[in-house]
Amino acid sequence: MRNIVNRRWLLASYPEGLPKLDNWSMDTQPVPDPGPGQILVRTKWLSVDPYMRGRISPAPGYTKGVAVGELMQGGGVGEVVASRHPRWREGDIAESMSFGWQEWSVLTPDSPGPEGVNKVDAALAPIESSLSWLGMPGITAYFGLLDVGRPRPGDTVVVSAASGAVGQLVGQIAKLAGCRAVAVAGDDDKLQWCREIGFDDAINYKKTGDLAAAIKQACPQGVDIFFDNTAGPIHDAVMKNLSIGARVVICGRIALAGQFGKPDIGERFMGHLIVTRASIHGFLVFDWWHRRDEALRHLAAWQKAGKIRFKEDVLDGFERVPEAFLRLLDGKNFGKQIVRIG
Amino acid sequence: MRNIVNRRWLLASYPEGLPKLDNWSMDTQPVPDPGPGQILVRTKWLSVDPYMRGRISPAPGYTKGVAVGELMQGGGVGEVVASRHPRWREGDIAESMSFGWQEWSVLTPDSPGPEGVNKVDAALAPIESSLSWLGMPGITAYFGLLDVGRPRPGDTVVVSAASGAVGQLVGQIAKLAGCRAVAVAGDDDKLQWCREIGFDDAINYKKTGDLAAAIKQACPQGVDIFFDNTAGPIHDAVMKNLSIGARVVICGRIALAGQFGKPDIGERFMGHLIVTRASIHGFLVFDWWHRRDEALRHLAAWQKAGKIRFKEDVLDGFERVPEAFLRLLDGKNFGKQIVRIG
Repeated sequence: MRNIVNRRWLLASYPEGLPKLDNWSMDTQPVPDPGPGQILVRTKWLSVDPYMRGRISPAPGYTKGVAVGELMQGGGVGEVVASRHPRWREGDIAESMSFGWQEWSVLTPDSPGPEGVNKVDAALAPIESSLSWLGMPGITAYFGLLDVGRPRPGDTVVVSAASGAVGQLVGQIAKLAGCRAVAVAGDDDKLQWCREIGFDDAINYKKTGDLAAAIKQACPQGVDIFFDNTAGPIHDAVMKNLSIGARVVICGRIALAGQFGKPDIGERFMGHLIVTRASIHGFLVFDWWHRRDEALRHLAAWQKAGKIRFKEDVLDGFERVPEAFLRLLDGKNFGKQIVRIG
Repeated sequence: MRNIVNRRWLLASYPEGLPKLDNWSMDTQPVPDPGPGQILVRTKWLSVDPYMRGRISPAPGYTKGVAVGELMQGGGVGEVVASRHPRWREGDIAESMSFGWQEWSVLTPDSPGPEGVNKVDAALAPIESSLSWLGMPGITAYFGLLDVGRPRPGDTVVVSAASGAVGQLVGQIAKLAGCRAVAVAGDDDKLQWCREIGFDDAINYKKTGDLAAAIKQACPQGVDIFFDNTAGPIHDAVMKNLSIGARVVICGRIALAGQFGKPDIGERFMGHLIVTRASIHGFLVFDWWHRRDEALRHLAAWQKAGKIRFKEDVLDGFERVPEAFLRLLDGKNFGKQIVRIG
């Protein structure tokens, strides 16, 4: 493969505040050959996800980040072109968090946990689904809501970034669990979509003067579960409306992407927590990775039964991957942001 | 009893910031007669506790507060002088959260939950123990640490207000559970006492320039359980040192007593929570009130076996009850603040 070129996006510099396009630079390398136990995969789709903001910061994270000059990390799905692994063949479809932003990847299927490679059944769903509802975002929504949020029928569930990859699934799973689901997003079209897929109410935080009052109006019995993908002002407004015994799932903090690594100064809610006996749970889906199949089995069944729907936002072209990521951080995507390659 | 005078402390005004002595005024009333199912009790000891700050604020709390002009709420222990309840006799010792700041109380033993009245076994321990280690603060430490904090042998437990009524018990129960216990307090004598009763390390937050660094040094593997009685700067320093999967028990917020009802502005820890997958739990002991006897049984056994010790700070005289409460809010008490009456 040495005579084929592999384009790659490298981290050129750590972002100050919100990332910009020039935080990445493209290089080209010969396509590498797979070693023993490895496969060579041609990238078909790349995923951009909020967690990537944490990977391009010198601040300590839950796993190793990207150093300046290194290949940008990211998940993808593609077709196996060469295999030196006994259970993988040419033509198989491979999904992994280990693709990186590049057109060709050498992957090691037997790597543990999220570094491993999953075989995608192209008959089950479009292969890019393995980056969204039938992949990491779906698993996030499933365990974050069901295991951490612990919904009971009749609970009121508020979801921030509700039309995003995780949020739209959280709302639909909440409905399956017998809950009332309230969407918070920043665009009327997004909110309309949320209502279409079953959210009972939807709040445009950009058009609401007093967001805490709007949450209160939408949740007169209080918020039993707050699935928080954003942190920031939406978090603050919901925290003032928790019910007794509420559970807050801290899944993401995309509203803070522009101040990453700096202290997040604002109101704290010690008094609210004591009065409501609520709990706040930092959540990382990789702690549930050993139960990945359980989530995917349920998600596939629900989708087949018409019980969940999913919206993707597709950009075309490898050169647009950084742009796709910036769209995501800016809330310009409508649905799960993915990039079709080649 | 109409010819005997009952002195009472009434709330004269809601405090602005930290309460002052003139937020209460004393009145006198004839001693009331007990009705059917009631007992008349002569107060022997009154308790002052941090939760009372929440009761004298117009801000909504977990239960009804004290209106201006009403009797100040508070727990006490005393001797039954007259009984119209079949299971209570003259000479019995009664403990209840329903005494109020007064010299004589008419109590209703069959009231549910914390409003009820408990019979105190004077042979078991000095009767004032029912206001401290063998009462509400003991129950708070027991369930807050064991049920909410969920200690495992080897865990590092940090306790703020560590020499206080709850804190000193949390540290000792943590040791019984096989944990390493680290005290945070604001006075070297208090810290010395904490070491004497078994805390492994002790930090004077008033003498420490960089408290987060001091916590890190005392807890090199991170903080597995943070039992927080204070909120404020101690909270902030510990939150930066949580281990993976840490549990934070929000039991009190005495450091905020001077800004009660106003927003608590400062650093928030969304990123820390996601990276560590820690959880924060608002805790109110009354949710465990149905299991009160379990805690008291264990506490009594531990004390009898010499496994827990307890320090009280006694003021004398009914007229000093407001002063005792202010000492507590100011951290001037050393051990559980109680007041001996008459």
